[in-house]
Amino acid sequence: MAAPLLRGENHAVTDGCLPDWLGRRAVTHARHPALIAGSGNWTFAELDDRVGEAARQLAALGVADGDRVALLARNGPAFVVMVHAVGRLGAVLVPLNIRLTPVELAWQLTDARVTFLFHDTAHANLAAAATDQVGVLRMLEIGPEGPEGPDAVSIKPRDRIALESAQGIIYTSGTTGRAKGVLLTYGNYWWSAAGSAFHLGHRPDDRWLAMLPLFHVGGLVILFRSVIAGVPVVLHEAFDPARANHAIQEERVTHVSVVANMLARMLDELGSRSYPPTLRCMLLGGGPAPTTLLQSCMHRGIPVSPTYGLTETCSQVATLLPDELGQHLGSAGTALPTTELRIERDGQPMPPGEMGEIIVRGPTVTPGYVGSAADDDIRPDGWLRTGDLGRLDNEGYLYVLDRRDDLIISGGENISPAEVEAVLLLHPDVEDAAVVGVPDEQWGAVPIAFVKRREGLTPTEQNVLDFCAERLAAIKCPRRIEWVDSLPRNAAGKLLRRELRTPG
Amino acid sequence: MAAPLLRGENHAVTDGCLPDWLGRRAVTHARHPALIAGSGNWTFAELDDRVGEAARQLAALGVADGDRVALLARNGPAFVVMVHAVGRLGAVLVPLNIRLTPVELAWQLTDARVTFLFHDTAHANLAAAATDQVGVLRMLEIGPEGPEGPDAVSIKPRDRIALESAQGIIYTSGTTGRAKGVLLTYGNYWWSAAGSAFHLGHRPDDRWLAMLPLFHVGGLVILFRSVIAGVPVVLHEAFDPARANHAIQEERVTHVSVVANMLARMLDELGSRSYPPTLRCMLLGGGPAPTTLLQSCMHRGIPVSPTYGLTETCSQVATLLPDELGQHLGSAGTALPTTELRIERDGQPMPPGEMGEIIVRGPTVTPGYVGSAADDDIRPDGWLRTGDLGRLDNEGYLYVLDRRDDLIISGGENISPAEVEAVLLLHPDVEDAAVVGVPDEQWGAVPIAFVKRREGLTPTEQNVLDFCAERLAAIKCPRRIEWVDSLPRNAAGKLLRRELRTPG
Repeated sequence: MAAPLLRGENHAVTDGCLPDWLGRRAVTHARHPALIAGSGNWTFAELDDRVGEAARQLAALGVADGDRVALLARNGPAFVVMVHAVGRLGAVLVPLNIRLTPVELAWQLTDARVTFLFHDTAHANLAAAATDQVGVLRMLEIGPEGPEGPDAVSIKPRDRIALESAQGIIYTSGTTGRAKGVLLTYGNYWWSAAGSAFHLGHRPDDRWLAMLPLFHVGGLVILFRSVIAGVPVVLHEAFDPARANHAIQEERVTHVSVVANMLARMLDELGSRSYPPTLRCMLLGGGPAPTTLLQSCMHRGIPVSPTYGLTETCSQVATLLPDELGQHLGSAGTALPTTELRIERDGQPMPPGEMGEIIVRGPTVTPGYVGSAADDDIRPDGWLRTGDLGRLDNEGYLYVLDRRDDLIISGGENISPAEVEAVLLLHPDVEDAAVVGVPDEQWGAVPIAFVKRREGLTPTEQNVLDFCAERLAAIKCPRRIEWVDSLPRNAAGKLLRRELRTPG
Repeated sequence: MAAPLLRGENHAVTDGCLPDWLGRRAVTHARHPALIAGSGNWTFAELDDRVGEAARQLAALGVADGDRVALLARNGPAFVVMVHAVGRLGAVLVPLNIRLTPVELAWQLTDARVTFLFHDTAHANLAAAATDQVGVLRMLEIGPEGPEGPDAVSIKPRDRIALESAQGIIYTSGTTGRAKGVLLTYGNYWWSAAGSAFHLGHRPDDRWLAMLPLFHVGGLVILFRSVIAGVPVVLHEAFDPARANHAIQEERVTHVSVVANMLARMLDELGSRSYPPTLRCMLLGGGPAPTTLLQSCMHRGIPVSPTYGLTETCSQVATLLPDELGQHLGSAGTALPTTELRIERDGQPMPPGEMGEIIVRGPTVTPGYVGSAADDDIRPDGWLRTGDLGRLDNEGYLYVLDRRDDLIISGGENISPAEVEAVLLLHPDVEDAAVVGVPDEQWGAVPIAFVKRREGLTPTEQNVLDFCAERLAAIKCPRRIEWVDSLPRNAAGKLLRRELRTPG
């Protein structure tokens, strides 16, 4: 359908570059706050200066265009500086999960062909243990504001960002199989920010609170949106409910990204207080949210926005707006305008209402995986297979049902663990729940539940099973309950059902 | 500086498509208002239905992929339907200026190789007179809601929009030389909308009032932003100050695009009333705005946003935000984040403070001109020479001084007519003013002024000249004043100084 340009064919079409994001903001927003991070505040001019210095220091250390540079550090100003300084040199950032074991880290360093590993003081031992097992790699410690030492090398400032160039590689915290290195481009981040701005809105006084780890895409997108739009980031080293609430109540935070556990703890800490109207959006990701939590937010007037996203799509695919919660409870909203979203079964697109695999296409989607990960999930026509199950309604609202890989197939019927968990979470005495399949001679597999009870409450197994039987087809009801004190979740708060299967 | 993707090279990189804008909104915003146009309101589902019907009718008439389809019509629902229906068929829209003569229109129809001309009833005679002079061309009348007649042909719905494909050709209302056909792509409109959203902000309750002619880019961008973002357009057939003020006061209009004359007339009509806080932005384009008008807006708390833009850049290049007016009066603001902006003289970039030609690069810039227009203004490195003079300050704020082609060179010194006009407009008895150069044996050229006096006021020529002499270097002072009842401006409100030169 592309209309021929006729005489336009020899014209200069856009070369896919934008003005350098931070460099531009250092001019137009020189004295505006860029980073608010406890110890101190930086304006965009100050951040740009620090990044320029860091880039010269990195260049002096030998970091060059195309190098893969790993970063093992807590959230903090040094992390932000490294993100932009590595990019300014044309190098590719590989942010590492600080909760991994040395063996897991060593595997990622090798898989991504990393040649430099920067770490903060707190993770010196972990970095050393990881690099012990890797071949050629330089390990270097950074200070609280990034690399340290003289900047003997002068570098050419970056005027422009090529959207197709690689920004970084993020290993997904997938619930199954080995971590996969997802390549993300500057364009992925730009389109994600633009799609999100059209979907959620954007105002010049936006102020995002980043508490999610910056080594996950859900944290990192906040940094890029900040320099694209010229709005500040309030950065917390780690999640602390009281500090998070303080930032919302006293520091004019307008947006905050959370997972369900974090939100629940923030509401507990908030008690009978409320959030000011300056808070516009609590972006709630990391897996399906308990209905009770969403209802509680609705009743309290808290602007929660459930979202569905993946590392492979540079965060948001679809997001429900706070004022849509009442009509579409349980949905992850409609797709961002930058994103094509389809439900597919056996290679055929499904009509509204039908369940199938969620597939996604568009300019936020990764160009592919690096290292040993297979590329089967990205088809030649550009569609990404997410491995997640869901359905769309008539109005384009997405309902995510489950990770396909966690499906329990029992007597030929598909059981979605998330659906059973949602029922368990409705029980007044249940705080958290996970459902997995265990092998069964007769049915192939049957569901069992791991349940954490609310403090001080002791429902019986039969009581909880009866509760389920009232609400679920018999085949979906757990065969037994195992009481637990906590459930395994990864750093992003995603339930790790796989780790529950072994004891079954 | 592009980091190599290594294993990524055989991956599926984005193919530059987005989900079809209107088609998407017809699902996610089915029952939201899309068009509010006096006679009736259409939701996005209704607009999409009407566009689908119109596309089938156009296809039945023979309109096909790649055809150049001209439209000669007033603002109205039919115009909106035609814009989207022509696009749905992959054809290229050529919107025509209804104020042109048949000779001028015939020239554009030929230059753009138009094969279909659609017109409304009001412009049947003009269309007939224009096509009389053109060879192969089908002329067809449309009704108030677009083409009429049976839709015998079924067409494949457009799922996706290829950003590099041609949307249309707009002939520029430039102040000098023959009109040039500017090719604009869907990408130009997308990047313009996104850059504007990051610059001005975007909210889901945005509601734009379109009164500028839709055959100019400043009007047309409003239609595209509407379907991209899922927000309604309030469309007026023509500019009427009382109706414009009513829309702002009673119909929750948040944004309105105006030129200085329109704004002044709206303020006159407004009298001692004020605008409600729902009005967030009056985007003021079409040439430098009188300082007195801006100051008046500031004092009255009216959120005016002076902007600098061109057809070739799909409207906005730079825009001053309402809350920046006090600090940067006279500036057109900073560049949109999607736009590179530079001041150049003799091929060299100028530092802040230095005057030179404004040049622009980025994804909002046209891929080129069609027909007979030369492409010299777009360099192989992608920079567009605007022909306008300006300077940037240290913070990246643009000050537009003049159309280069209107420069008066007097005794080797450059005189900017806009600068002299700005002084004349400070005179309390002066309502409007234009300055042009007339040949002079001694100096090469000297400035003279055409002045429209405020109603009922009769300042003497000497009084006005003395006023200038107090504020301008002698060389810049007009040699004489000619009193006029009006000044020639084009449909976009831009001053046509060229038309004033002949009488000199």
